[in-house]
Amino acid sequence: MTLPTGVHALVRRTHEDRVLQALREHGAMTRGDLAVRIGLSRTTLSEITSQLLVRGVISVSSDEAPRLGRGRPAERLTLDPAAGQYLGVDFGRRRVRIVVANAAHDVVASDAVGYDAAASWGERIAAAFDLVDRLGIERGLHFDGVLGVGIGFPGPFSPRVPHEPSEPVAEARRAGATLMRTAFAERFEAPVVLDNNTRLAGLAEATWDAAAGIDHLLYLRLSDGIGGGLVVGGRLVTGASGLAGEFGHISLDGNGERCRCGKRGCLETVASTDAILRRCTEAGVPVATLDELTDAAGTGDPIVVGVLREAGEAVGRVLGSLAVALNPSEIVIGGEIALVSDVIIAQAAATTAYELLPVGEYSPTIRGAVLGDEGGAIGAIIAIFQNSPLLAGYQSATNVAPAATPLRRSNT
Amino acid sequence: MTLPTGVHALVRRTHEDRVLQALREHGAMTRGDLAVRIGLSRTTLSEITSQLLVRGVISVSSDEAPRLGRGRPAERLTLDPAAGQYLGVDFGRRRVRIVVANAAHDVVASDAVGYDAAASWGERIAAAFDLVDRLGIERGLHFDGVLGVGIGFPGPFSPRVPHEPSEPVAEARRAGATLMRTAFAERFEAPVVLDNNTRLAGLAEATWDAAAGIDHLLYLRLSDGIGGGLVVGGRLVTGASGLAGEFGHISLDGNGERCRCGKRGCLETVASTDAILRRCTEAGVPVATLDELTDAAGTGDPIVVGVLREAGEAVGRVLGSLAVALNPSEIVIGGEIALVSDVIIAQAAATTAYELLPVGEYSPTIRGAVLGDEGGAIGAIIAIFQNSPLLAGYQSATNVAPAATPLRRSNT
Repeated sequence: MTLPTGVHALVRRTHEDRVLQALREHGAMTRGDLAVRIGLSRTTLSEITSQLLVRGVISVSSDEAPRLGRGRPAERLTLDPAAGQYLGVDFGRRRVRIVVANAAHDVVASDAVGYDAAASWGERIAAAFDLVDRLGIERGLHFDGVLGVGIGFPGPFSPRVPHEPSEPVAEARRAGATLMRTAFAERFEAPVVLDNNTRLAGLAEATWDAAAGIDHLLYLRLSDGIGGGLVVGGRLVTGASGLAGEFGHISLDGNGERCRCGKRGCLETVASTDAILRRCTEAGVPVATLDELTDAAGTGDPIVVGVLREAGEAVGRVLGSLAVALNPSEIVIGGEIALVSDVIIAQAAATTAYELLPVGEYSPTIRGAVLGDEGGAIGAIIAIFQNSPLLAGYQSATNVAPAATPLRRSNT
Repeated sequence: MTLPTGVHALVRRTHEDRVLQALREHGAMTRGDLAVRIGLSRTTLSEITSQLLVRGVISVSSDEAPRLGRGRPAERLTLDPAAGQYLGVDFGRRRVRIVVANAAHDVVASDAVGYDAAASWGERIAAAFDLVDRLGIERGLHFDGVLGVGIGFPGPFSPRVPHEPSEPVAEARRAGATLMRTAFAERFEAPVVLDNNTRLAGLAEATWDAAAGIDHLLYLRLSDGIGGGLVVGGRLVTGASGLAGEFGHISLDGNGERCRCGKRGCLETVASTDAILRRCTEAGVPVATLDELTDAAGTGDPIVVGVLREAGEAVGRVLGSLAVALNPSEIVIGGEIALVSDVIIAQAAATTAYELLPVGEYSPTIRGAVLGDEGGAIGAIIAIFQNSPLLAGYQSATNVAPAATPLRRSNT
């Protein structure tokens, strides 16, 4: 698929997008209903749907039951499940996870493959392409009609802000992003969206299998590092320069432990995997791995439980403060540490509830993540849906409402 | 103006809205350009613009210069400045402020009138109507073509969430909101939008006179109470149940002073007007009013400066944490306390910058508010613009992107 360019093509793609959006949200519809809902003339709508039918992106619904006494029923149009795929790709520190959905948004394949933490971007991309080939063979998928690729990767990233390289690490990350975007766009001839994988996991928790989606969600991920994602008004918040969600570096105690970021008392110094293993060991229960920690927590060792409660308390203070500010309806805690024991989430929920005392009539749901390792890749696919499968420009659409009109003062 | 009802009327109003939105954002346009931009057929567009012309909401642009060799230029359509007004009404604790803008978005009048802090909603509304009458006489405004009324009022409020009354105070507030909505809708026969006035002041700081508007802004207001507003993606964040922005009750110290909310160490216990006056007095500099505090700060009294620095430090810790999470491009500090001395904003800026250490390449602008007492009323007008002057339903549009489509798992 080669994307057309120019103003008229843009207008047409916008119309196509509205048609697909309507079919996605409402299922099969007649052309007449589509025209009314979208506000296009019947003529324009017919041109648009003809092209989409020719390209196989939509099809005529096959489950059309004849209705008595009303002649031939009006044809209903629907997204064609077999028309193509969406790829969600999550590049983690030590593995790439790929999730494949069909055009009707059913997940049809999911798998992961490991690489060395020191692997280059080129090696990671090669590993991802090998995995795609393998999934193609194992599942009989052809990937010749990929409608969009969503990519999650670690570290701060803005899908829409042109970055000014200002330090070597950030510059390398941006070079990696450009490399990935180019490699996947060339291989699949499809639009590519990129975002931070932890944020995407938050988006996935907000929308996965939910009847209506969660409009306002706070997502925190506890692992080697601590990050998160905010969903506001149904949309992922990237922030002004792509840095939104760095919850691990919210400081709770100016006199606390020194953090790798230079500050003291950051959430990461209390609730990251390393911090918890170290604190247990220092308190007299030597644990070197997550498995050992899980075992020790399972026996109810009071020192381990105490360390986990302290971590949960710190998590709850951060989540409580953010919930006072943002008023989410749901708070989700994910990551490997959340799976060690129920203690962390239970304590975090209790502390969050206390922090919400001043807004007593409001209590968000607090729960563990449900998506596990697939969250980032699934979120990457949802990011494609939210940003038009036929528009190449994630940059132009993400998270930005039309600018409000300024007021001017003439006289007062 | 009586708003039409029913599905076809709704579709037509949606089209009208798109036309007005385009004219608002892009200035005068030809019908041809409008049709392309909006994606309506020429026929449909002509019907829509004819009705808008008849109703005087838009007019034919008068500054049309003839273009050589191209015959009669295509007529350009524009919003008619004289076609009506927008009213912004901010009900504070002791005064109502009204700002009037014309249809071209120029502010043409602004004034305030006081009432007793114990005044009923009915008395406040009567005071507002008297002020409108007076502005009409003084400025020669007729208010017979009001296009929308925006109302700001104190306390948590959601413009779109149907509230379940759960406590007497909240119930009284909701009754007040209903009374205001009804009174203004009847008096001006126009759609009414309501929101929290502090949040609206934040929206105004983000969009007032800005060339492009600030997409991501954090606003904090220091006064008797401490509240704020978040703008994300150009939109005001109300939260899941209308409570977003309660920054005054973010706790900084679990062992700190008891707050009126029941928790300890909330920002309000350190940086509200009462807290600062009390802390100065307890430290040996008796000050009973803001004026006395301002005078004492003006002499550089070290105890007063110390108390203000502590307040600024606390403000900076809250703003820093929120900025780490939300990555705004601009942070604005308003309210009476911010005007007492430069010390608070200077210290808050320094502390915020320190809290942002882990995201070193990013530094938001931190500044004092520019709109003063008019902020809430101006924000109320901007809320009308953001929510269609011709659609009655602020509820249905605010802050909610179309729900993302759920993914389903078929097999993996």
